[in-house]
Amino acid sequence: MLKLVLPKGSLERATLALFEAADLPVKRSSDRDYHGTVDDHRVERVSLLRPQEIPRYVEEGFFDLGITGRDWIEETGSKVVSLARLPYSKQTASPVRIVLAVHRDLGVSRPDELRPGLRVSTEYPALTKRYFDELGLAARIFPSYGATEAKVPEIVDAMVDLTETGSTLRNHGMVVIDTLLTSWTEVVANASSAADPDRRQAMEDLVTLLVGALTARSRTLIKLNVADGDLAAVLRVLPAMKAPTVTALSDSGFHAVEAVVDKAGVNRLITTLKAAGAFDILELPIAKIIL
Amino acid sequence: MLKLVLPKGSLERATLALFEAADLPVKRSSDRDYHGTVDDHRVERVSLLRPQEIPRYVEEGFFDLGITGRDWIEETGSKVVSLARLPYSKQTASPVRIVLAVHRDLGVSRPDELRPGLRVSTEYPALTKRYFDELGLAARIFPSYGATEAKVPEIVDAMVDLTETGSTLRNHGMVVIDTLLTSWTEVVANASSAADPDRRQAMEDLVTLLVGALTARSRTLIKLNVADGDLAAVLRVLPAMKAPTVTALSDSGFHAVEAVVDKAGVNRLITTLKAAGAFDILELPIAKIIL
Amino acid sequence: MLKLVLPKGSLERATLALFEAADLPVKRSSDRDYHGTVDDHRVERVSLLRPQEIPRYVEEGFFDLGITGRDWIEETGSKVVSLARLPYSKQTASPVRIVLAVHRDLGVSRPDELRPGLRVSTEYPALTKRYFDELGLAARIFPSYGATEAKVPEIVDAMVDLTETGSTLRNHGMVVIDTLLTSWTEVVANASSAADPDRRQAMEDLVTLLVGALTARSRTLIKLNVADGDLAAVLRVLPAMKAPTVTALSDSGFHAVEAVVDKAGVNRLITTLKAAGAFDILELPIAKIIL
Amino acid sequence: MLKLVLPKGSLERATLALFEAADLPVKRSSDRDYHGTVDDHRVERVSLLRPQEIPRYVEEGFFDLGITGRDWIEETGSKVVSLARLPYSKQTASPVRIVLAVHRDLGVSRPDELRPGLRVSTEYPALTKRYFDELGLAARIFPSYGATEAKVPEIVDAMVDLTETGSTLRNHGMVVIDTLLTSWTEVVANASSAADPDRRQAMEDLVTLLVGALTARSRTLIKLNVADGDLAAVLRVLPAMKAPTVTALSDSGFHAVEAVVDKAGVNRLITTLKAAGAFDILELPIAKIIL
Amino acid sequence: MLKLVLPKGSLERATLALFEAADLPVKRSSDRDYHGTVDDHRVERVSLLRPQEIPRYVEEGFFDLGITGRDWIEETGSKVVSLARLPYSKQTASPVRIVLAVHRDLGVSRPDELRPGLRVSTEYPALTKRYFDELGLAARIFPSYGATEAKVPEIVDAMVDLTETGSTLRNHGMVVIDTLLTSWTEVVANASSAADPDRRQAMEDLVTLLVGALTARSRTLIKLNVADGDLAAVLRVLPAMKAPTVTALSDSGFHAVEAVVDKAGVNRLITTLKAAGAFDILELPIAKIIL
Amino acid sequence: MLKLVLPKGSLERATLALFEAADLPVKRSSDRDYHGTVDDHRVERVSLLRPQEIPRYVEEGFFDLGITGRDWIEETGSKVVSLARLPYSKQTASPVRIVLAVHRDLGVSRPDELRPGLRVSTEYPALTKRYFDELGLAARIFPSYGATEAKVPEIVDAMVDLTETGSTLRNHGMVVIDTLLTSWTEVVANASSAADPDRRQAMEDLVTLLVGALTARSRTLIKLNVADGDLAAVLRVLPAMKAPTVTALSDSGFHAVEAVVDKAGVNRLITTLKAAGAFDILELPIAKIIL
Repeated sequence: MLKLVLPKGSLERATLALFEAADLPVKRSSDRDYHGTVDDHRVERVSLLRPQEIPRYVEEGFFDLGITGRDWIEETGSKVVSLARLPYSKQTASPVRIVLAVHRDLGVSRPDELRPGLRVSTEYPALTKRYFDELGLAARIFPSYGATEAKVPEIVDAMVDLTETGSTLRNHGMVVIDTLLTSWTEVVANASSAADPDRRQAMEDLVTLLVGALTARSRTLIKLNVADGDLAAVLRVLPAMKAPTVTALSDSGFHAVEAVVDKAGVNRLITTLKAAGAFDILELPIAKIIL
Repeated sequence: MLKLVLPKGSLERATLALFEAADLPVKRSSDRDYHGTVDDHRVERVSLLRPQEIPRYVEEGFFDLGITGRDWIEETGSKVVSLARLPYSKQTASPVRIVLAVHRDLGVSRPDELRPGLRVSTEYPALTKRYFDELGLAARIFPSYGATEAKVPEIVDAMVDLTETGSTLRNHGMVVIDTLLTSWTEVVANASSAADPDRRQAMEDLVTLLVGALTARSRTLIKLNVADGDLAAVLRVLPAMKAPTVTALSDSGFHAVEAVVDKAGVNRLITTLKAAGAFDILELPIAKIIL
Repeated sequence: MLKLVLPKGSLERATLALFEAADLPVKRSSDRDYHGTVDDHRVERVSLLRPQEIPRYVEEGFFDLGITGRDWIEETGSKVVSLARLPYSKQTASPVRIVLAVHRDLGVSRPDELRPGLRVSTEYPALTKRYFDELGLAARIFPSYGATEAKVPEIVDAMVDLTETGSTLRNHGMVVIDTLLTSWTEVVANASSAADPDRRQAMEDLVTLLVGALTARSRTLIKLNVADGDLAAVLRVLPAMKAPTVTALSDSGFHAVEAVVDKAGVNRLITTLKAAGAFDILELPIAKIIL
Repeated sequence: MLKLVLPKGSLERATLALFEAADLPVKRSSDRDYHGTVDDHRVERVSLLRPQEIPRYVEEGFFDLGITGRDWIEETGSKVVSLARLPYSKQTASPVRIVLAVHRDLGVSRPDELRPGLRVSTEYPALTKRYFDELGLAARIFPSYGATEAKVPEIVDAMVDLTETGSTLRNHGMVVIDTLLTSWTEVVANASSAADPDRRQAMEDLVTLLVGALTARSRTLIKLNVADGDLAAVLRVLPAMKAPTVTALSDSGFHAVEAVVDKAGVNRLITTLKAAGAFDILELPIAKIIL
Repeated sequence: MLKLVLPKGSLERATLALFEAADLPVKRSSDRDYHGTVDDHRVERVSLLRPQEIPRYVEEGFFDLGITGRDWIEETGSKVVSLARLPYSKQTASPVRIVLAVHRDLGVSRPDELRPGLRVSTEYPALTKRYFDELGLAARIFPSYGATEAKVPEIVDAMVDLTETGSTLRNHGMVVIDTLLTSWTEVVANASSAADPDRRQAMEDLVTLLVGALTARSRTLIKLNVADGDLAAVLRVLPAMKAPTVTALSDSGFHAVEAVVDKAGVNRLITTLKAAGAFDILELPIAKIIL
Repeated sequence: MLKLVLPKGSLERATLALFEAADLPVKRSSDRDYHGTVDDHRVERVSLLRPQEIPRYVEEGFFDLGITGRDWIEETGSKVVSLARLPYSKQTASPVRIVLAVHRDLGVSRPDELRPGLRVSTEYPALTKRYFDELGLAARIFPSYGATEAKVPEIVDAMVDLTETGSTLRNHGMVVIDTLLTSWTEVVANASSAADPDRRQAMEDLVTLLVGALTARSRTLIKLNVADGDLAAVLRVLPAMKAPTVTALSDSGFHAVEAVVDKAGVNRLITTLKAAGAFDILELPIAKIIL
């Protein structure tokens, strides 16, 4: 039985939705509760805590399994076992980047153009210190508690901050001149819990279910009919993620074809399939995929 | 053509969502409207009224069919025909309980330890009176209009109240010492309407659709592929809710299997199925099930 | 690559939901942004502007393709190529009507009973003027900027306004005495863009996807099992939108049948199918349909 | 030290604002708390409970002093000592009325035109029963739990309900044909608490402060200057609520006049005062008045 | 008795607050109601309509008195009698400006640098046409229904729009190159109503009260004490808006001084007064001022 | 001209309200803006930043004057000049306390009963480390980013946290066993700015205005009339905050008395004043007090 810790705050909603989609809904007596349960024999209890604190709590063994960002694992330097990347963040399915940005009026486009004594605001002081130590530049680091971009250029010259699309930075006149880290949401485990075979199996099961629900979001189930003569042509253009299910329709001269395809390219695919002879094309939503 | 009455208030949202899921959406000119229509030849009109009032209105024949809680049917002592239980309440798919609770400081754990003259606050004065009469204890009953737990222990010693998970009671220091009633959301009919064959058929049809939509929520459609040699093993572990649909894939050495299974156990089932040789397992959401 | 313009305001939410359902999600840095992108090779960029302004912008060629209402195309008299009707509006899948309404106290039920000098309030002054010119009645037209019904009968005698269900008009004591226009949401193209074969193909592709997603909403995929002997009877009552997919289940004496049917009649159909011998009937949601 | 009970629900906000204005702010750890304190030596503790329950709790002596409506005192038939009327309700400073209303289509305009067997919906079943008993008419009373007007005319013929301005009734096509009760917000006391001289004095003090704050809302402090020769004329038109304060300005030939006047007539008064020779007229807000 | 029309929309809240402050509160049965009443013998009824429509309605005599912006009076070219400017707008007490703005990338800083064929987006097409006619420049005017700045530079080259502080324009990269109109909120009257002496007097009374309430917002009543010997010095630095009220305190060697001063300079004034010998300085809020 | 920094977040609303009350309203183009202006010649510009960061920014001279909590000054160990305490916090006019709390189940009531290796969660790691160093107890400190109470007792044994009323701690079963710091909102200055006479004078002026507005909230202006014979008795019971203003009313045998008194005791005072012969007692709100 595993103790889980999930991220409270900006990732909270997306994380709880993912657990619900994986048929592992987290039950709490109220939305503001920090503790809850999952009705699954592999889960003992669930806490929701700030992602910054999670790596250390998992390292210390207060929890067996946690979900947090790679950024906070690196910032806190915690020793945890990474089991999987979960490709979701606040808004998108892309990872976020921790970048070094300066105001465009500074006229700097590469880190090596920065001058010593540079003032940097950041919510990642440890990561930032390590970065400038490696760069060999003496920077003055000011810990930030939010709205880092509001401090440039009056208070600091540069900032190290998380960006998802870069648009907030651009709107504040900032130019990204380096990337310190590409950060994914990750499932991390306590080292000794992960070394225990039973717990490890339970962890793998949960990861399978979460990844299965996450994968389903970017896939769609295509069903189509095709005349026997066009079957080969249609199968040729279907992408090979898994073997399509092909069924001869009773006494009809037609086959039914089912395939799981990537949503990203489906609109182009449909055009191609119609050209190859497919008709009566349906897309069905998928709840979970275990390939 | 049936006149329907649905519960306004805490069950309203869940009830309207259920009708929508059953392809019986209730149309109203605004969310605050008390009257609406359903575009189905079996429904003449729909009203939304307080669940407390519904049993008596159905008994009197102002409506043919109503949805309300068993608690209010018992409290009002109304004579109605119960057609089906709909397993949903405000938050969960579980029934609610009407319980007798006392403050933990009272040091009482069984009803027979209570003393005469006991003061009880409740939104169910009739149910409560009947209970204490049967118990042979002279209690003073104070009708409550909400927030019953706020009156213990200053105003009353005990309360009879509805509880879904028990957590609100526990947070207020209350201990449940008896259960008066387990209450489900029910579909109830006026007796003479239900005795009319045509109306009865229309009622049964509507119940079939509502139950079909409700059942679909707790089920998922599993699709999987399996090598011909593993087919028997896979079918053996598939739960027997209905016969799985097994199709031989054209000239492939594989079968495709489809089955409807309970969401509650699906995460454990998937592990078992993979072990038995299933692969390419998909779960698809179901909108309605008529078994 | 096409420049698209979508309607900001009351149709915005429904339009963006439709694009998302068609796997063409519009990405913007914030919900209040007027410009965005779609990750599809056929779309260069997307703007969201008021539907009143869209016909003229498309006519002028500022955009290749736009979505707006037929009402604004007529009001502005813009020359655009109409590619498709998209049957959705603010609340329903029905078209809206632009009607002439008067207060019931005026005692008028036909346009030809109106007297010269009539004062009319409307958000469609051009349409209204054309209507009264054709009617040969000298009316005084007052442009309205919203809440047109609030001006009858104190300020004006009549109004020309959009109505979806008619209930707001009735609640204000208005009687509809004529319909000037039935207005659908439409996909319109700039004439010279539509004359270019490549752009035309891209436009047709997008329309196919949007219509496919819209159609899917009003359809459901029915799956059922039937004994071989009942198959013919079941197929006879299944509506003929497209050929049902019939599969013999391996060595079982049963067939599985799949068909796409209209949601509107599905509740009646299910009763009929059961009577004909169908069992284990499932409805599955559909995301897109390309017939 | 007094135990107070204030009305939760529709009067809650206005009541808490009145206590704040009287420098008796109620402190609670959250807005949803049912219990609080007032930092005044005369107040031991404060509870917020439903106004329907307050009369009986005060009668029983669970609280010394309560604020509730006259309607609930009459409905519950509780024996409490009324200390003061507080002229405020949900929206206005006027009392509310409990009225008997019928649908205009019933064509009835006087109670004696009603027929036996009349069905009446009401949140005041006891008051309503007493009324029809006195009237000598056998009515069937249906307890209502809200939205009483939604039940006319389908379910009941008439209703007994609270009305503040009458507009909701009119909008539902109802005609008021009798008034059962004019109801004010009242301060009520437990009889034995009120018989204790010390507690009675504390109650009177609190009433003085609450009435003082309430009175201040409808008054304004007028300050004006006037030439010595016009002083008599100005004083003549000043209303005589209390003697105006007249001060001779040092060596100036002018007097300064201050008076507390009713806000209701102040706009007309200002015109009169200017005509009588007043100038430099100021109105100042008043926080509390103890006349 | 006057018929009044007030602006619905962005000025609505500020206008209703002003009427309330002037002891002329507008009563409506709901916040969404278009019609209301004021409990004052000079006001027959009040409507709330869009400010764009108000000038023409007042000109036509549908209302005696209206409040709207100078911008809409000019745009509609309505003939109304202006009685007073009310210095308030959506956010501030300053007037708004209707300006001509171009994108900074156009490199234009004066209207005479603009080229013929210029495309202009505006909510004020009539005003804009008049402006360009006078300028002698052939511009193509596109009516805008909101978010005008979103159309520059893709759709149009320039815009004529309302600005309060200019910051929205600057944030969109726009440069103001001319001001077409400085617009205040105004009280306007129908010409023949204003020519009637009784109605005119009632109008003047209402304006006095509204201006009195508005003036009070920017003033504060200062009360201070001063030793007899410092009185002259203190009076010398007090601004002379109206004569201060000076009272000798009984047998004390001190005078009390009261004066109404401008809030804008009060913080500087207090320093000066203290230096001149004033002490115990109070500022009191004023509700209305009739000088 | 001073650069000011105000606290963003939980103190933001109260701080901006105080500046508004002091006639120093902060103007920003939107509520989410980090920078603004005050229309006063002593203020160059205003920033709103997190209170944690303010002490160091003021120490570094990025701002001349800041408002923040004593807790963050101590936590960051910043060297700033404290000019005034402003007695307000999020909800009340009381200071907050930084306390050491443990779960009641730990059975500990004094710091010296704690055992080495104790785990402590806190948002004040520096303060906490200093505290335990002085106590001579080796504690393991876990930085907290919010909801500190959620970590006891599962993750940590104790917490150091801010508390306003103590009720949140009590609700989570925590017992306060020591107070590390009593923290007020303070006005702090950069040392070298404060050493400049002109800037220092400007700082003192602003503090006077802010304190004047804050003081006014807890005071009320009492006006009363009294017969000449009772004057001495009334003056005797009036508290001596400042000399009351006593004026003989012209030829009346009465005096008018004005005094500023504390709101906290005013309800008791009014009773005393009435007993001493005062009548027509008014309380007026005060906007600012400069004693």
